[in-house]
Amino acid sequence: MSVEALFNPRSIALVGATDKSGWSVSTLLNLRTHGFPGPVHLVNPRGGVVHGSPAFRRLTDIPSPVDLAYVMVPTGAVLGVLREGAKLGIRCYVVLTAGFGEAGEEGARLESEISAFAVENGLTILGPNGNGYINAAVGVTPYGLPIPSPLLRGSVGVVLQSGALASSVLAFAQARNVGFSLLTSMGNETVVTVTDVVDYLVDDPATKVIALFLETIRNPAEFSRVARRALAAGKPIVALKIGRSRLASHTAQAHTGALVGDDDVIDAALRQLGVIRVRSLEDLIITAGLLASSGPLPGRRVGVVTPSGGASEIIADRAEDEGLELPPFAPETVARLAEIVPSFGTVQNPLDVTGYVLIDRTLLGRALEVVTADPGIDLVMLLSEPPRIAPPDPAPAFALYSASAGRIAASPVPVVVVSNVLTDVTEFGRRVQQETGFPYVVGGIEHGLQAIGAAVRWSEARSRALAQPPAHPPGAVPAGATGVWAEHRASALLASAGLPVVPSVLVRTEPEAVAAADGFGYPVVLKIAAEGLGHKSDIGGVRLGVSGPDEVREAYHSLAGALPSLAGVLVQPQRIGGVELLVGIVRDPAWGLTLAVGLGGVWVEVLRDTALRVLPVDAGEVRRALSELRGAALLRGARGGEPADLDALAEVVARISAFAETLGDGLESLEINPLLVTGSRVEALDALVTWRPADESGT
Amino acid sequence: MSVEALFNPRSIALVGATDKSGWSVSTLLNLRTHGFPGPVHLVNPRGGVVHGSPAFRRLTDIPSPVDLAYVMVPTGAVLGVLREGAKLGIRCYVVLTAGFGEAGEEGARLESEISAFAVENGLTILGPNGNGYINAAVGVTPYGLPIPSPLLRGSVGVVLQSGALASSVLAFAQARNVGFSLLTSMGNETVVTVTDVVDYLVDDPATKVIALFLETIRNPAEFSRVARRALAAGKPIVALKIGRSRLASHTAQAHTGALVGDDDVIDAALRQLGVIRVRSLEDLIITAGLLASSGPLPGRRVGVVTPSGGASEIIADRAEDEGLELPPFAPETVARLAEIVPSFGTVQNPLDVTGYVLIDRTLLGRALEVVTADPGIDLVMLLSEPPRIAPPDPAPAFALYSASAGRIAASPVPVVVVSNVLTDVTEFGRRVQQETGFPYVVGGIEHGLQAIGAAVRWSEARSRALAQPPAHPPGAVPAGATGVWAEHRASALLASAGLPVVPSVLVRTEPEAVAAADGFGYPVVLKIAAEGLGHKSDIGGVRLGVSGPDEVREAYHSLAGALPSLAGVLVQPQRIGGVELLVGIVRDPAWGLTLAVGLGGVWVEVLRDTALRVLPVDAGEVRRALSELRGAALLRGARGGEPADLDALAEVVARISAFAETLGDGLESLEINPLLVTGSRVEALDALVTWRPADESGT
Repeated sequence: MSVEALFNPRSIALVGATDKSGWSVSTLLNLRTHGFPGPVHLVNPRGGVVHGSPAFRRLTDIPSPVDLAYVMVPTGAVLGVLREGAKLGIRCYVVLTAGFGEAGEEGARLESEISAFAVENGLTILGPNGNGYINAAVGVTPYGLPIPSPLLRGSVGVVLQSGALASSVLAFAQARNVGFSLLTSMGNETVVTVTDVVDYLVDDPATKVIALFLETIRNPAEFSRVARRALAAGKPIVALKIGRSRLASHTAQAHTGALVGDDDVIDAALRQLGVIRVRSLEDLIITAGLLASSGPLPGRRVGVVTPSGGASEIIADRAEDEGLELPPFAPETVARLAEIVPSFGTVQNPLDVTGYVLIDRTLLGRALEVVTADPGIDLVMLLSEPPRIAPPDPAPAFALYSASAGRIAASPVPVVVVSNVLTDVTEFGRRVQQETGFPYVVGGIEHGLQAIGAAVRWSEARSRALAQPPAHPPGAVPAGATGVWAEHRASALLASAGLPVVPSVLVRTEPEAVAAADGFGYPVVLKIAAEGLGHKSDIGGVRLGVSGPDEVREAYHSLAGALPSLAGVLVQPQRIGGVELLVGIVRDPAWGLTLAVGLGGVWVEVLRDTALRVLPVDAGEVRRALSELRGAALLRGARGGEPADLDALAEVVARISAFAETLGDGLESLEINPLLVTGSRVEALDALVTWRPADESGT
Repeated sequence: MSVEALFNPRSIALVGATDKSGWSVSTLLNLRTHGFPGPVHLVNPRGGVVHGSPAFRRLTDIPSPVDLAYVMVPTGAVLGVLREGAKLGIRCYVVLTAGFGEAGEEGARLESEISAFAVENGLTILGPNGNGYINAAVGVTPYGLPIPSPLLRGSVGVVLQSGALASSVLAFAQARNVGFSLLTSMGNETVVTVTDVVDYLVDDPATKVIALFLETIRNPAEFSRVARRALAAGKPIVALKIGRSRLASHTAQAHTGALVGDDDVIDAALRQLGVIRVRSLEDLIITAGLLASSGPLPGRRVGVVTPSGGASEIIADRAEDEGLELPPFAPETVARLAEIVPSFGTVQNPLDVTGYVLIDRTLLGRALEVVTADPGIDLVMLLSEPPRIAPPDPAPAFALYSASAGRIAASPVPVVVVSNVLTDVTEFGRRVQQETGFPYVVGGIEHGLQAIGAAVRWSEARSRALAQPPAHPPGAVPAGATGVWAEHRASALLASAGLPVVPSVLVRTEPEAVAAADGFGYPVVLKIAAEGLGHKSDIGGVRLGVSGPDEVREAYHSLAGALPSLAGVLVQPQRIGGVELLVGIVRDPAWGLTLAVGLGGVWVEVLRDTALRVLPVDAGEVRRALSELRGAALLRGARGGEPADLDALAEVVARISAFAETLGDGLESLEINPLLVTGSRVEALDALVTWRPADESGT
């Protein structure tokens, strides 16, 4: 739903305004001190004077039109306010009042009444149980908690599924000199949801970067849609999504499968959508601030300019952790730097121009100019920061930072300025930045390199993620698609779709078995084929290396007697060599079909070494997934094996995934274990399909 | 060497004092403003007035005794100053002057002159090329860079192998309200070394925690000695040791072996010594500040009290990352909390007492009191922080924080206070802490949980690391200990020490081979035995599964013909099943013999999954090493294998390690690959010993 009108009212009524409420005091103060130009009406059923101004008894008594009602009345009175407002044509509401869904059954009932009323009457409601929003871009601040001064306007749009953390986010952003376009505290999301606000921010010209604090992703399809819109618009989304821990995972409603936790699926989905996931509030703001200031970063080759050897070495360590490269400087760069850096220094990347900066204040700037011209680097990291305290005569500082700002602005590559440690940008520092145009300073080497790494990865992933693989529409559901399809049916299904499956004959007599084996040549494999049977080898239902007719007869006999309800026995040629993979496609209750691919055996069983993707995927995405495996070297021919044809392998896995999509909502899981790859030959040696009970698979 | 006198002079001379030098200005200003009670004499060869005071032309002209000379003269003049000072009986020096070893050959020559002169004359010299020190505990600050005011006195002793970073460390510590006992900027460590200062801090009653910034560990044996002293004294060492990156590792002088980088050895050594290694300057100060305030933390079961649901969930995620436990509260705790927490809240650990704290300011404190009494927790993490800005009437804030401070002081378990995000403790916040006794506030959830995790691990490791395993003195070096000893000699050496080795017969004829095989029973293994031969299997020198006399003859024939210089052929029984390990003992050029243990095959070759220890080790330490392996589940019987007797395995590995120590300085490496463990049977199936060239192994 559109929230344009919600965030841009020309007049506001505070309903339930009272001197006794801190929220009421704060909301009015915020509107008055942060530039709201329109009228603010106070409504209190007792009338009288509130916050020093006369109050109306009811919304109806307000003589001029009201665009937004900020509602702070008791829980039971909220619906009445909405009814009155709807009659008066008030379309937009912020409901601060708590006691709804978060407070138990009775509250949930009241909340559903509000939600139904809003839908019927086309009302836009933020909350309930939310503090409102701060539209810093235009100075509209119906927000119930104190806003620390000064409110910094900027281009980061923030959406929070937590009220209490908003104050920390505001305080930290101020300390980092990061300005916001909009900050929204979502509350219970009864009507307006996170994705509605993200949709708005994607279109909002004041917003360049979107920062999210997420407890849950309520609607993955809708989230995917707005995330792709943001990506297409070139607006990075940075997200702190909590609930990673086992504790959180255990309490979550549903699980994808034994191999992957819910959070693994969310993690894969966010990466595929180009969303930058961070793990702390600090990284949320620092990374968003960097991207708002720098825009996309063109590559991972970083030139580093510092006034300190110690800092250079910390940077070298941390850059490697983040997958950033610090390439050697070009010979011309080295020659030019040798004329600038004092003789007792060493010219290398990372560059330490030495403590001589204390004597020659132009040293860092001149070195920066040379490094930015190096043809082999994509961006420069400059270790610098504005002064913390105003010197007695601030003029030289202003001149120095003006000159630096000019050099940075003139650089042919992005220059990211990072401070040594994460301390607040002081009031004087902020003034220097404002008056000299000195750019955003990323807070400290530690968080700075994480932010640069994330920004580089986002920039690289952007074009890739934009080329979204096509989804494959459901096709005809196979007859009898219920329960568990063991190998003989699952493999036939795959083969019918043209997927490579090891040849196989289902036999029901000894002579048939021998004939089939003779046809393949020896050695062969015999397996029991029974309905609903998952793990054959666990019950001794597989005989490997059967190497002649007599052994076939013996194996057939022992297998055929193993189970009463046998469909028959499968005879297959035995494959030698190659690398075994597990390919599992499992339905996640929230995100739909997901692909897990890993190396078989110990890799999956002991290391849980799998890479995960939400479908659809193309072969390129599968190749990237394969390259993430810790055992990827085995596919490249480590230990003397034949290197796997990764393109052929990725192609087959992508085709399997596409086929799974066509099987419709009834598919619960499709597992191929192993998928054998030997050079460019890729073949499913075993398969298992599980269908959902009919009552769960309807759309 | 003792640095007691260096850090506690009663009178100081600034030699080379001049109005033109920022260092001179800063040093004098620092001494005058931070409480140095003794006389400060200025020395300048031209005499006259310097910094507004009359200057002496020479040290000799100073009429009263000088305890410490702070030397800022040109590089070539330093030795002259030392000569003059030595004659006058001045024992202690800080040499700020640069241009020595760090500046090339000529500088290194000058530095070695100084060093030699110091040794001859018993001088204590800090530097050269160092800014000096700040002995905040007693207000002695001969330090050449500006010290941000106020200088906070406290119990963290800081030693830095970087001059430029000292300013960042001071600024960040001030922002975190962490006070120092001593800060030392080491410079070139010509005379006084990091370990000398650590030794001093271990004995210094003002110091509780030691924080190190290390570029190199010059003398591992000495470092180990002082680290153990610190541990015994209960003073944690927190270290940021840089040079982790491949870049750094490539340039380092020497490597332990292909499997492990130098930094892996340092990492293992620091852990064994109980040193907390951090990766950022922020974590260095935050962790040191926490330990200075809390002392050891008794366990990893944390009760969490917060005013925010969002923060609680961030904490749950990050606590799991750090290996901390958030156990459910005891029933009585839950019952008591239910009476305190508003009905719309949920009583659980982590506890969110809800935003109602804004209305009832006692809520958090009352909940804290209940949680600290829970019998199932070891410590409490309280999310709180002093106010940033003074309210118009600060009295209620002071009362509130006084009450909190009282509750925290009265708690039966440690209470660690953590702020939501890492912003500076403001001047007002610091005043509140000082005046109310409100404790140290760890900066932000992100760094806070890292610090708590590190502090808990240090506390757990302390008793363990104190029980240092005994070293094993060198015994008789075996005859002919040169070059590479292939299996037939290496295994015999191990067997001679009573270590379990697979039985083996060295044969030189076909009949001998058959007789040996008959003796063992079939199948057997045949291997070539040749001097100086490492990897037999790479050249087809191993025949497995030889299952009868004819096969023995054939195998003997083909092996015996393979190499001209054959010592013979080894015949061994073939072992079936079990788990193969690699046990490698390699001499690190800095740290001496190190043990690498890992699972064989892909685990080592593809995953490099090894655990490392510096010798000596006992069986307990080996067991911990085994438990660190990613594939440890295989040893516990994953995939249906027989669980390994870990005690028996650890015992054998510890005995192998002890035996390696007895082989003396000539041992370069001793590798057992594989060591086969099958239940409680542990047996070396192959071994290789490499001896150092004689000219490298002398002591």
